[in-house]
Formats: sequence, C-alpha cells, structure tokens
Amino acid sequence: MCRWAAYRGIPIPLEQIVSAPGHSLIDQSHCASQAKTATNGDGFGIAWYGDHAEPGLYRDILPAWSDCNLRSLARQIRSPLFLAHVRASTGGATSRDNCHPFAHGRWSFMHNGQVAGFDRIRRKLESALSDRHYACRRGTTDSELMFLLALEFGLDEEPEGALAEMIRFVLTTAEAEGLATLVRFTAALSDGERLYAIRYSTDSHAPTLYSAPMYGGNGHCLVSEPFEDTAAKWQEIPAGSFVTVTDGGLSVRAFEPVSPEPVRLSEPA
Amino acid sequence: MCRWAAYRGIPIPLEQIVSAPGHSLIDQSHCASQAKTATNGDGFGIAWYGDHAEPGLYRDILPAWSDCNLRSLARQIRSPLFLAHVRASTGGATSRDNCHPFAHGRWSFMHNGQVAGFDRIRRKLESALSDRHYACRRGTTDSELMFLLALEFGLDEEPEGALAEMIRFVLTTAEAEGLATLVRFTAALSDGERLYAIRYSTDSHAPTLYSAPMYGGNGHCLVSEPFEDTAAKWQEIPAGSFVTVTDGGLSVRAFEPVSPEPVRLSEPA
Amino acid sequence: MCRWAAYRGIPIPLEQIVSAPGHSLIDQSHCASQAKTATNGDGFGIAWYGDHAEPGLYRDILPAWSDCNLRSLARQIRSPLFLAHVRASTGGATSRDNCHPFAHGRWSFMHNGQVAGFDRIRRKLESALSDRHYACRRGTTDSELMFLLALEFGLDEEPEGALAEMIRFVLTTAEAEGLATLVRFTAALSDGERLYAIRYSTDSHAPTLYSAPMYGGNGHCLVSEPFEDTAAKWQEIPAGSFVTVTDGGLSVRAFEPVSPEPVRLSEPA
Amino acid sequence: MCRWAAYRGIPIPLEQIVSAPGHSLIDQSHCASQAKTATNGDGFGIAWYGDHAEPGLYRDILPAWSDCNLRSLARQIRSPLFLAHVRASTGGATSRDNCHPFAHGRWSFMHNGQVAGFDRIRRKLESALSDRHYACRRGTTDSELMFLLALEFGLDEEPEGALAEMIRFVLTTAEAEGLATLVRFTAALSDGERLYAIRYSTDSHAPTLYSAPMYGGNGHCLVSEPFEDTAAKWQEIPAGSFVTVTDGGLSVRAFEPVSPEPVRLSEPA
Repeated sequence: MCRWAAYRGIPIPLEQIVSAPGHSLIDQSHCASQAKTATNGDGFGIAWYGDHAEPGLYRDILPAWSDCNLRSLARQIRSPLFLAHVRASTGGATSRDNCHPFAHGRWSFMHNGQVAGFDRIRRKLESALSDRHYACRRGTTDSELMFLLALEFGLDEEPEGALAEMIRFVLTTAEAEGLATLVRFTAALSDGERLYAIRYSTDSHAPTLYSAPMYGGNGHCLVSEPFEDTAAKWQEIPAGSFVTVTDGGLSVRAFEPVSPEPVRLSEPA
Repeated sequence: MCRWAAYRGIPIPLEQIVSAPGHSLIDQSHCASQAKTATNGDGFGIAWYGDHAEPGLYRDILPAWSDCNLRSLARQIRSPLFLAHVRASTGGATSRDNCHPFAHGRWSFMHNGQVAGFDRIRRKLESALSDRHYACRRGTTDSELMFLLALEFGLDEEPEGALAEMIRFVLTTAEAEGLATLVRFTAALSDGERLYAIRYSTDSHAPTLYSAPMYGGNGHCLVSEPFEDTAAKWQEIPAGSFVTVTDGGLSVRAFEPVSPEPVRLSEPA
Repeated sequence: MCRWAAYRGIPIPLEQIVSAPGHSLIDQSHCASQAKTATNGDGFGIAWYGDHAEPGLYRDILPAWSDCNLRSLARQIRSPLFLAHVRASTGGATSRDNCHPFAHGRWSFMHNGQVAGFDRIRRKLESALSDRHYACRRGTTDSELMFLLALEFGLDEEPEGALAEMIRFVLTTAEAEGLATLVRFTAALSDGERLYAIRYSTDSHAPTLYSAPMYGGNGHCLVSEPFEDTAAKWQEIPAGSFVTVTDGGLSVRAFEPVSPEPVRLSEPA
Repeated sequence: MCRWAAYRGIPIPLEQIVSAPGHSLIDQSHCASQAKTATNGDGFGIAWYGDHAEPGLYRDILPAWSDCNLRSLARQIRSPLFLAHVRASTGGATSRDNCHPFAHGRWSFMHNGQVAGFDRIRRKLESALSDRHYACRRGTTDSELMFLLALEFGLDEEPEGALAEMIRFVLTTAEAEGLATLVRFTAALSDGERLYAIRYSTDSHAPTLYSAPMYGGNGHCLVSEPFEDTAAKWQEIPAGSFVTVTDGGLSVRAFEPVSPEPVRLSEPA
C-alpha cells in the first residue's frame, strides 16, 4: 500500500503538501506506530509542472523521510500542479525506475493498488505495447506498465476511455489465463493541464481516495489517505469514480470500465 | 530504537541470524504492523570476523529489507563471530558513516540507546579524544563517539573497565553542563576473540537484551529483542549486566559504572 | 568499454585481483589520466563461488574506487573462482540491475562489447526468451539479454554451442531488420566449476582479452586489459577464441559462430 | 582537482550551465579521454537561490553524468544565482556531506584546491570554531571547514576580510605545527545577493579561474575551467584575485591575505 498526494491550483511550494511537519505525505509515511498502516520506505518521487510542457521528475530509493535533498527541493520548488508518492513495495526491486511517478512526454502518473497474478500476465500485457511504448519501459512494476498501456490506448485523446480500456484489457488478459480477475486501482495523473484521479476496484476494496479544497478553493488536493493534523476538510471519493480537477474546480463522475454485475468477462462481448 | 543481533560459536552463514525469513533481524526490522515497534529503515550494517584480525564491514543506507546485496552476502559469508544492526535514526543524517557497526582495528561495536542532551556535550566529549582517535571520527553519532571514548579509555586492555569509565565520563560531562544525567546503553562489541555485551541504564528503562544458546550450545546469540518465530530459548539479560561469550560459554556479571544510589557524580571520587 | 577480470585457481582473497593498489581492476578503472582509456565509473560488481552452487553477488552503482564496502569485502572474501567488473555505460541507466556480473542459478556472466543497433532489435531478441527466462530479465542492457539468450539456447548443456547460437541469432535478427550485423563480444562466464571466456567480433575490432598464470600455475587470471604494475606474464588471446579454465589449466580453441567469409546470413540455413 | 561553475544574472534554467550537451559542467566532468584532465566522478552538487533567503541544495554521491534527477532538475529550475560543483576526491569518503556546495543560512560555498598537511591540522582548525559553527560541521573535508572558519571570522559582515583571515589562520596553524604552509584556494560563494570568487595560492599554482559575460552582458559565469565548445569569451582571472559580481557587473581586485614576500608568519604581527 503506497501513499500519494496530488495538487492543482494556485502555485505553492511543494513542501506544503510533501514535507510540512505534522500534516504532509512524508510525515504520514513514517508513522509506523499506527497498527493499521504500513511503512512506505521503498523509495519516493515527485513530478511537477513548471516552465516546460513535460514535468520535472525527482525520484530516489531512500525512504522519503531521510532524504535531505527532497526536503530542500520541496521547499524551493513552487508549482501549480504536482504529484508526490511514497512507495511500499509488495515485491520487486527498490530501484529508481520502479519509483512513482512515471513520466512520459507531458504526462505524469502514479498509482496505489494491485493486479492479481501480475507476474503471470506481465509478458502478455507488455506484448500489447507498440514498439514506441515498449522502448519506454524502464522498470518492472505493474504500475508503469498500466501507464504505458493507457498511453497505448489513447490517453492523449481521451483519458477516461483509455484508462477504462486498459483496465478491461488487464482483466481480460487475466481471465484468458484462468486467473482471478482482480484489479485495485487508485491513481492520479496529469497532462500538465488537468489533474485526473481514479478510485476503482473490481471488488469492494478500492484503495481509498480523498479530496479537499485548499487556499479558499483556489486549489485542490487529492490524497490516498487524509493527512492527520490539518484543517483541510477531507471528503472521501466513492469507489468507482473518475475525478477531474481544472480551473473550474473538482468534478467527480462514475467510472465503470466493466459492467459491475454480473461480471462475465469470458462471455462474448 | 535500533535493533541488533550478535553471534559467537561454530561458524554459520550470517543469513541464519541476519536474513532468514520469519525469524531474523531483517524480518524483525520491517514488522511495521506491530503497534509497539518502530521501523528500522535508516540503514544497516554487518561486521564479521574471518581470516584477518580486523573485521569485514558492510554498511549501507537503504533499509535492510530492500538490499539484495545484503541478502547475497549473508547467504555466502560464514563466520564464527559477527554483529548485525538495523538503524532507526532519532536524528542525524542517514549516511554510511553513521551506520553501525563501527570498526577500529580488530574491534567492532554497535549500540542501541541514547545519551540525554548529546548535542550539547558532543564537543566536550570529542575533545577528550587523543589525536589518534579523533582522526578516526567519521560520522556524527553518539554511538561512534562512545566507542572511540572506550578505546581511549583502554578498551584494548580492560573492556569492562574502559566502558564503565566511558559511561562515567559521559555522565560527569553532562552533569558539569547542568544537564540531566541519562545514559541508556545496550551494546555489543568484539575484539575478534570474545563477544561482549552490556545492558545498562541510569534510569529504569535499559533497552532490552536477550540471549539464547544455539546449535546445541555450540553457539550463542545476543539480540536487542527476541526473534519471534523461532525455537530458540530466549532469556532476558537483566539491566546492569556485562555479558562475555567465549569458547567456555556465556557469562553474566553485574555492571555498575556508577554507584546506583545516591548518584552524586560531582562529588570528588 | 567496460573492464573486467576473472580468476580460477587456488582460493585467494578477491582483493588480490579486485582492489590491490597498483595492479588491480579498481586501480585500473580510475586511471583517467591515460589518454587512451575511458573511465569506468558507472557501477561495478563481483560474483564469487563459495559454499553454495550459486554465486554470491555484490553490485552497486557507485564508482568502484569510492566504495568502501567493496574494499572490505574484497579483503575478507576468499574464493577459488570469481568474476569482477567495472562498468562504463554507453547509454542506459546506471542501476544495480544493469551492473555486471549477472547471475542465474549457478551461472555468472559479464561482458565487454556491443551490438550495433541493439535498441532496434531488443524487443525481437526478448521475444525469443521463454517465459521462464523472460521473467528473469531485470535490467535493460544488451549484456543481460545475451546471457539470458545463451541460457535459452542451452548454456547448461553445451556452453560454447549456446553462445555461438546466441551470437548467430543476434546477427540474424539484425540482418532481418536491415541493420548492420556487428557484434563485439568479449565475455567471461562460469557455472561454478569451469571458467569460460570468449573473445570475438564480426569485424576486426574484438575487445581485447589477456590471460596470465598465477601462483606458480595454480591459478589463472583472465582480464580485458592487463594490469600495469605487475609481474604477471600476460598473453593476448587472439580474436575468435573460446577459453576454458579447469583444474587441468587453460585451453584455447577457435570460436567461429559464423563462417567468416562470405557472411550470407540471409540465406536459408 | 574538482571543477565548478557559478552564475549570476538574468534568471536562466540551470541546465544552460550545468548539463547542456557539449559545453556544460557535466559534459566537461566526464571527458576522461583528455590526457590532462582528471575524472570528476566523486559526487556533485548544486546550490541555487529562489524565493527564499537560503539556497536550495541538491547533492549526491553518484557521478553527475549518470544522475537522471540532476538532469531533470537542471532543466526545470530557473535561477538568477547558482553554484554547481563536480567532485574529484583526493582522499576522504564519498558522502553527501562531503559534496560541495556547502550551505549555511543564506550562504553557499564551493571550492577547488588543497591545504598541505590538512589531516595534521584539522583538529586545531576545528577547535577555532565557536560551538555554533562546530555544531554545523557535517563532513570531514577541508573545504567545509574553511567555509565554517570564514563564517566564524565574519563572512556575514566583510566577506573578503573573513576569507583572508581564514587563509592566514590556516597558514599560521600549519606553520605552528612545523608543516609546509601551502594553501591553494579557488572558490565561489554567495550570500544570495552577490556572487564572490577567489583565485589564490601561496605558491605559483593557483587553481585556474575564468569568467565570461553571457546573455549580452546580463549575466556572468565563473568557472574553474572554460567549457570547450561554446561561444563564450572566457577570460582568465589572474592568481591573487577577489571577484565580485553584482547587478553592476563583474569586478576584480587584488587578494593578498599574506604579504607575498618574505613570508614570516611566525613573527609577531
């Protein structure tokens, strides 16, 4: 279970979300004394938008809480749109290439969740990538691969549709292998203009997602779990949601990549 | 609160203590789901004795659980005498030089505990080092400094006396500064022949220390906390103890660097 | 241009080959003042055989010369059979997974050379791997992939034949893509019993390979370039050679994966 | 011999000085094929001024050329005033705390040079620090210590005088120990407003320093060695110079911390 936070609004120093003591992502990542929470010490990353179309990217394999560089960068860098992630590996190496966010052109992407039986369908999923996106594969995570598949399926043109198709493809592939069809997927992504997020699961355990307005409504923050010691009014986003944050504010609509009942993916479509 | 394990006995692969799944130091260090335990993700280290008088040393700043090198080394290296440590920093940088064990000549040393007000007496303590030992100071931890002070005070000749004098010196220095005189000190050290350990505190909260015979009594293991899923018969070492492990087995005697009552360190000795 | 050294013979501390000052791999890797030599600062690795069938593996992304762990390990670890490598990346990330040697089961492998147009045939080469070996792909280098292909083609049963088939397959794949068919390949590998090496190129620039007897003929060292300040009697291995080192000594025979003239790989086999 | 570059002028992306291909600090640091140049692969750092009085700081122990984070940061961060450094250790550990630039409050500092016999006077120099600055000592380099001594001697009030006094103090201390009195010191530093640099040596081998106007005179760059493939008109700064860059441009005046002849530092002043 990783944790992440994303922000879109008036430009703010990243530290206000990433590293401020008492109510930030880093602070949250280390509270190992809470019985229900895992430690997120397997690397971290930030992606932020500035003067360029493509995001800046800073990722490393240390625990976020012990990286003095991250603290300084989060204090100095101001941005109107950024993603931040702390990783708890459930398998797979701790390497920079496996750290979120992932970036491709103007897109950035990060994720919390899982694909049941990923190791057994990884190769089939990779074979669906065009040469162009296959060449961009750097690490071994399911998250990076789902991001590349979404790009393959038209993220640039229609984000919601591309993500839905990606999830359907993962499920169909798993089913074709005779595996359980379980995808839990709570993700944030951006093209540098809009901030998108999804909370979805094929079962009833979609990883949590919360939103809160900030700075008098001039900004919005999305998080996998609310920060604890903060005045922000966190609202839970229901499972099966697609979130869009623009200048006009935050909107949520239903996200149903597959018909919820009855799921019979092996039937002819 | 760091955690450590030390072994002396018939040569065994380090992995049996360091990284075996279910009952090893690494496994123990990551169990963040236990409400009472802190994560030990701020670096790790091993010191082991082989063909040379001085120990081998391998330390790094990653969490121990994500270091594939450590796993391979622990599997390949056999040793009759070794120390292993996972660090939970309570302040201070995560750097290799701040990772335990520390080594000097044939000695190795690691520690779990604290010195109240260390930042305010650090300089005075460092000034007590001879040029020779001052030049060996690499990091900024209290632990490394206490090791160098013990060397200064005759660790080579009389380990127990040197450690007692070191603790007295720390307390006297703190008192002279008008600080609380609190030292908690649970440590293991070796000269390549014997394995020593101390459990001590000026208050009633000496960090825990346990021992267990292994391999039919042909080895002894000392740990800051018992491994959980293991058949070893762990015995708690009482606070105020000095432990020695030799070919003849494990012996414990009282360790009282200062008279327990009343503490009046500023009086002429 | 990476550099490497391999040893088989009476057990010696790795440092005698890896890190001894004045005539070792590390020393050699840093001599940037020599006009003709590149710096090999993009990671390093050692694989050695001890008590287990599979080798120990220690790799990191620092320059070898600044890694104090490597120095201590090379001093402590004795082995009758080991490989050591310092990397000069010609592209691709500096990550542990891209550092040589690579290990798989009892095999270890390291390489100096290149495949022309690798990026354009990488996917085709990967698709020739069975699921079992595909799942073992960790990094993005041509070297790791050539090792996995050799395993695929029967390295376990017939090393020379498997390596020859791998090289033919790479060439055939490149030709099918209309690319230049250039492979330069100077590599060392071991199954824990024998030490093998190849010096080969499709053109006249096969990366160099030298051998020297050591310890009165009780050991043999293979290196990509001779150490400079040493009494060892280095002998150049000619291009197009397959080297085998066993208890019986070192033997060299011709290695010709493709008929040298005329190369007409596109003809039906 | 480290290398560094510093810039003050209209805000520019750091990459134009730090990482642009063909004529930047990173590119320069890796040209090991040049017979006369050392490799600078022992860590790197950047310090830059933005919205805050104190600089941002990003340092790491990898070679600069292989750090993808540095490339992204240098592309995204714009600043009117920054320092960048690639390190070639002449001894001492490769750790973040030993990487330049060093920062303290609003000051940043980096250095290329040496102090003869530093190991033998390090302790005496450290003992001249007040408790406040002593507590800020993180690493073990001569460079960091000279920076702290300059702060001790009034860098905040009178930079040139404080640096001169620092150099005199180092020389006096060396002489008192009966050591050769050799200081080579080419450094850049800033308080966030002005950019300062010094080129100085007690002998005739002051490490080089060059300056060039940029962006039509709206910026100035100072470098330890000129970039090679660039249109900038580099001018050598003579040994014994103190350089100041302000909005008004670049000015150079003589810097003579000690009377050049005859040096009789042990005489009463």
